[in-house]
Amino acid sequence: RVTYTDVTSDENLPSFPRSAMDGFSVISSDTFGASEGLPAYLEVVGEVPMGQSSDINLSPGQAAKAYTGGMLANRADAIIMIEHTQPANDTTIEVLRPVAPGEHVIQIGEDIRPGDTVLAKGHTIRAQDIGGLLALGKVEMDVTCLPRVSIISTGDELVSPNEVPKPGQVRDINTYTISSLVIKAGGIPVPIALVSDTFESQREAAIKAMELGDIIIFSAGSSVSSRDMTASVIDSLGDPGVIVHGIAIKPGKPTIIGMIDNKPALGLPGNPVSAMVVFDLLVKPIIHTFSGCKSYPEPKTVHARLLRDIPSLAGREDYIQVQLIHEDNNLYANPIFGKSNLIYTLVRSDGTIKIPLDSGGLYKDTEVVVSLY
Amino acid sequence: RVTYTDVTSDENLPSFPRSAMDGFSVISSDTFGASEGLPAYLEVVGEVPMGQSSDINLSPGQAAKAYTGGMLANRADAIIMIEHTQPANDTTIEVLRPVAPGEHVIQIGEDIRPGDTVLAKGHTIRAQDIGGLLALGKVEMDVTCLPRVSIISTGDELVSPNEVPKPGQVRDINTYTISSLVIKAGGIPVPIALVSDTFESQREAAIKAMELGDIIIFSAGSSVSSRDMTASVIDSLGDPGVIVHGIAIKPGKPTIIGMIDNKPALGLPGNPVSAMVVFDLLVKPIIHTFSGCKSYPEPKTVHARLLRDIPSLAGREDYIQVQLIHEDNNLYANPIFGKSNLIYTLVRSDGTIKIPLDSGGLYKDTEVVVSLY
Repeated sequence: RVTYTDVTSDENLPSFPRSAMDGFSVISSDTFGASEGLPAYLEVVGEVPMGQSSDINLSPGQAAKAYTGGMLANRADAIIMIEHTQPANDTTIEVLRPVAPGEHVIQIGEDIRPGDTVLAKGHTIRAQDIGGLLALGKVEMDVTCLPRVSIISTGDELVSPNEVPKPGQVRDINTYTISSLVIKAGGIPVPIALVSDTFESQREAAIKAMELGDIIIFSAGSSVSSRDMTASVIDSLGDPGVIVHGIAIKPGKPTIIGMIDNKPALGLPGNPVSAMVVFDLLVKPIIHTFSGCKSYPEPKTVHARLLRDIPSLAGREDYIQVQLIHEDNNLYANPIFGKSNLIYTLVRSDGTIKIPLDSGGLYKDTEVVVSLY
Repeated sequence: RVTYTDVTSDENLPSFPRSAMDGFSVISSDTFGASEGLPAYLEVVGEVPMGQSSDINLSPGQAAKAYTGGMLANRADAIIMIEHTQPANDTTIEVLRPVAPGEHVIQIGEDIRPGDTVLAKGHTIRAQDIGGLLALGKVEMDVTCLPRVSIISTGDELVSPNEVPKPGQVRDINTYTISSLVIKAGGIPVPIALVSDTFESQREAAIKAMELGDIIIFSAGSSVSSRDMTASVIDSLGDPGVIVHGIAIKPGKPTIIGMIDNKPALGLPGNPVSAMVVFDLLVKPIIHTFSGCKSYPEPKTVHARLLRDIPSLAGREDYIQVQLIHEDNNLYANPIFGKSNLIYTLVRSDGTIKIPLDSGGLYKDTEVVVSLY
């Protein structure tokens, strides 16, 4: 979840001077000059139990037992670790080292002071942030809504995954792979419908998608061919409509980027490999932007050595699926050159490497950065 | 989720010869020798619509319209792309290039054949794996249970985060930070209780923790001091009990590793920074092991240049919190030297770097690997 506003503290953290060690509350000046040869002798006048307020007021020459995380005795200004003392008799300790004022003490407000911004607006809340908020008693706060991503799957050949396809038919998988990717990116998938390749059925689904989602994804129907009407549907629904039709990447070229009344509408290629590449490149950053987060999460990457040459054409970015191989403490990236129509090209691979726009390819043994799924 | 068994296909994928392009089904030998200067002429005898079985049987000299993802006409063995043809008249096309047998055709079973293991036992299911499973009609399968992690928070000083602490008291945060870390690692957190520093109350909570969880975590109570009885509680409940008490890392030294009747029982330091370091190092791999996954997920890391010297003592591993700074296309790691008692040391940082056991520290400008939260 992402913070909707700056979060400000009303309190000091800690709210009382806390001991950072097990030992004794002392007045530091009583220990100045102390050594193993010439210890300082202090009278132990009691203890401050964990979780309790101190009712001990130290006078010079006195000490009080202290526990890690417990409160200092009143008028004490330092903690001497138990390891640096030894008992002289039942009520007296020998202090074997000097302690400086403030030593082993967490001062009031040392971590956070009232008025401090503890989390900025647009911050993605992590485990430790929850801890930081709860330490200040902030058990409720405003966070942004998760972006809702409508998914329309198009194609006369598609049937639901629990049906047995007839010859010529295939099961719809993109609705579900895209839904999973949406969840992973921090959005809520809203599967709208499986629709046939007619303008009217796609337009009807798109109207529902606009009602229910912040971002609209059309799966398939984005290549320039007779049965591809995603672009016309997007153009028919609002301004500016289609902005980009076709991008210089492989796979993923026949991608559509449009806006319908301030909602991004994207046409993703139907091939699963292309769809996944384009999702990572375009849809993920849109979901992050809509979630209000200020800085995009760092991608999960590893460095690996390429096992084979990869040719590429200059003038487009290539995204190549690779399998990672751990061997002799080295990590190798083995390109999987499956067709982008084959879902198992993705199943067999662990991540993707990018070949830049102006590169003619990469040689074997090059160190590459692999973006992991 | 992690697969509980190998998953095997019962089907061919694809289950019929599919066109990979928009164009025409052809008998490839009809196109041999075709060129722009000397095209081959083919009679277009119909089309195979998307999602339908072919009822066209091609004879030599014939072609049928084909769509990406659609079925080939019977007796066709290749697809000629529409870009490599041009209409000669209403029923005839000119083919401007030869196509090889099988060109632009995805053959039956090219992706998967019956009997193929599509996902091995112990595989963590990703978006594309869901696609791969659904493509084969596998809408249900056996997965492992998520490991349940019981969390006992100990300390006389602790109150619930929605209470206002009295002097000497602090709000319990470790139950919630550890719960978040458990969820992120793929487990189910089971918060058991906030208990005081008495043997009986901790033992009672531990018995409940054993009933409800696969892994038991004690927060705090793990250092060697008068009020620390986690080790005694673990030893009192089953064999072998405590195996390790104290590990050579900083922060995180006073960690307990034990086993009670085949359930791991860990004592984590109460300091939030230490707790998080030890969680990543020990609890996360245990959760992964219990979830049945064969290969641990790669940690999320980035490479960065160190902004300051970090001293360290040989003989222990140091874990240092760092903040990442993006500047001029470079990534820098700025060490955050907060005390490990301070939760905001973690809130202000983006990741951790490790200084190896035998290192005396790291110099400014060293390239370091930062493990991100």
